[in-house]
Amino acid sequence: MSIRIGIVGYGNLGRGVESAIGQNPDMELHAVYTRRPPESLRIHSAGVPVLPMEELEKASGPDVLVLCGGSATDLPLQTPALAQRYHLVDSFDTHADIPEHFARVDAAAKASGHVALISAGWDQGLFSLSRLYMSAALPQGQDYTFWGKGVSQGHSDAIRRIEGVLDARQYTIPKEEALRAVRAGENPELSTRQKHLRECFVVAEEGADLERIRRQIVEMPKYFADYDTIVHFIDQQTLLREHGGIPHGGFVIRSGRTGFEGRSKQLMEFSLKLDSNPEFTSSVLVACARAVYRLAKEGQSGCKTMLDLPPAYLSAKTAEELRASLL
Amino acid sequence: MSIRIGIVGYGNLGRGVESAIGQNPDMELHAVYTRRPPESLRIHSAGVPVLPMEELEKASGPDVLVLCGGSATDLPLQTPALAQRYHLVDSFDTHADIPEHFARVDAAAKASGHVALISAGWDQGLFSLSRLYMSAALPQGQDYTFWGKGVSQGHSDAIRRIEGVLDARQYTIPKEEALRAVRAGENPELSTRQKHLRECFVVAEEGADLERIRRQIVEMPKYFADYDTIVHFIDQQTLLREHGGIPHGGFVIRSGRTGFEGRSKQLMEFSLKLDSNPEFTSSVLVACARAVYRLAKEGQSGCKTMLDLPPAYLSAKTAEELRASLL
Repeated sequence: MSIRIGIVGYGNLGRGVESAIGQNPDMELHAVYTRRPPESLRIHSAGVPVLPMEELEKASGPDVLVLCGGSATDLPLQTPALAQRYHLVDSFDTHADIPEHFARVDAAAKASGHVALISAGWDQGLFSLSRLYMSAALPQGQDYTFWGKGVSQGHSDAIRRIEGVLDARQYTIPKEEALRAVRAGENPELSTRQKHLRECFVVAEEGADLERIRRQIVEMPKYFADYDTIVHFIDQQTLLREHGGIPHGGFVIRSGRTGFEGRSKQLMEFSLKLDSNPEFTSSVLVACARAVYRLAKEGQSGCKTMLDLPPAYLSAKTAEELRASLL
Repeated sequence: MSIRIGIVGYGNLGRGVESAIGQNPDMELHAVYTRRPPESLRIHSAGVPVLPMEELEKASGPDVLVLCGGSATDLPLQTPALAQRYHLVDSFDTHADIPEHFARVDAAAKASGHVALISAGWDQGLFSLSRLYMSAALPQGQDYTFWGKGVSQGHSDAIRRIEGVLDARQYTIPKEEALRAVRAGENPELSTRQKHLRECFVVAEEGADLERIRRQIVEMPKYFADYDTIVHFIDQQTLLREHGGIPHGGFVIRSGRTGFEGRSKQLMEFSLKLDSNPEFTSSVLVACARAVYRLAKEGQSGCKTMLDLPPAYLSAKTAEELRASLL
């Protein structure tokens, strides 16, 4: 029998979950839940209902919900509320607020006997796992996380708020020199500026003062002031044609030492190169939904993260198949 | 209270475990167990007893054993036998025999109420985990494992058995062209020859027929015949000076597609670059010993692999610390 998945929220992430379910034969899309008028939504899957959020208060729903809302305002409320009635997965990614989010979701999920996995995806998620495995394997060492090349939505939005800017796309790019030093096991101390470069493609209003816009970008505190920032002005067509995707990726690298007197240098690296950040995140969320389903079948409850999941639970294969095929 | 580790077998791997324990403040070396006369062994740790294997039949021993014997003859017997009395970790790596080894160890460990983790290390181990996470995250895709650059003991030994050869070191080297094609997401069909190159450094007896030795190497079935093989003849001093280490490493790469009609290319890569293969393997075994200890404390029993371990159990940090620091 298939695992019936409910998608809560139908933006880039929700669409990604919908397509990912189609790649996993042991799953089926039960319904999409939305705050918008359901009839205004056109989803890809034929015959699957689009329902108002209130339907989730009814008795019989999907086996596992995948929450596709944002970390700023949606998930802090939705996850603890829905954990009272459902097993679920979210991608909460406001790092500083994870302990509080965890505590609230854990209380709700434990009280109701559900499994709620938070902060799934790639960072947090697969990158967190990499840092964990790497630091366990090389306790004497140092790790580095680089992001990119990829689009930062937050930085793109910040540029769009500048007067005279019509549209913008910002890429975060790891600096080659920093990557090289880390891979050489030099354990460098790297400033913010030394780790990443920011490259911006900006569509300005006709007649706007480009130099003023450029200055406002590169001097913007928190977002750009601490970085080397490159600004290109382009037209809207070029932006759409050449910068319409949402690529991302990054690197987790740990260099450490083993042996008596730490005589041996050891290097571990995990990297992602993604054409579509939301589709990849969604694909990870769907694998996590399978693990949540299995934990729930075992009678577990409470809040979990990917750090708690037995890896085998993510796969559609049985433990025997995994041992025979990929161990 | 520290986790008390017992090392069974004191070769390269056993010494690696000894040094790794020193990097993990929550562990201590309880004893080294050996089949050799204990007084013939000089270990690095002051005040730690070296004991004959028979001591393991006594009532009070270490919390977890790390078995450092070989997969050919030691572990098939030792692991099931010792799982009757101890929680343990081994690095059994004869892929085809894992199901049988698992079944025998599982029966012994379940009957006695112990946790026995088999096939830990990096391949099998961290590479298996990478293949698992990657295939779960990208179900529509293909993965590739490359080994090297690193020393293959088996191939080095095979060369040493040729008449007229005094010593030899063989490096397995992934081919750049193959790595490039895989990283480009081309999902190439790669023959054995296209994936890896074999480079051999050979010390021959004085007056030996070098061309005959070279031919015997490159034509050796299974070991070399299917590869491009380069043979260098060098003297013993050069071999010891320039090829005395046991470096290794490798790459697991998966390229896949997500999105409707598989429109987005996604690439995942995990790699290792190791100065010392046995020290790194040992370091992973020691982290696994911690996880075994925790599973045992929970009352679990039976045979496990790294695919079954909740990642957080590998770390000395608490779940709260992990969520706050590296999630």
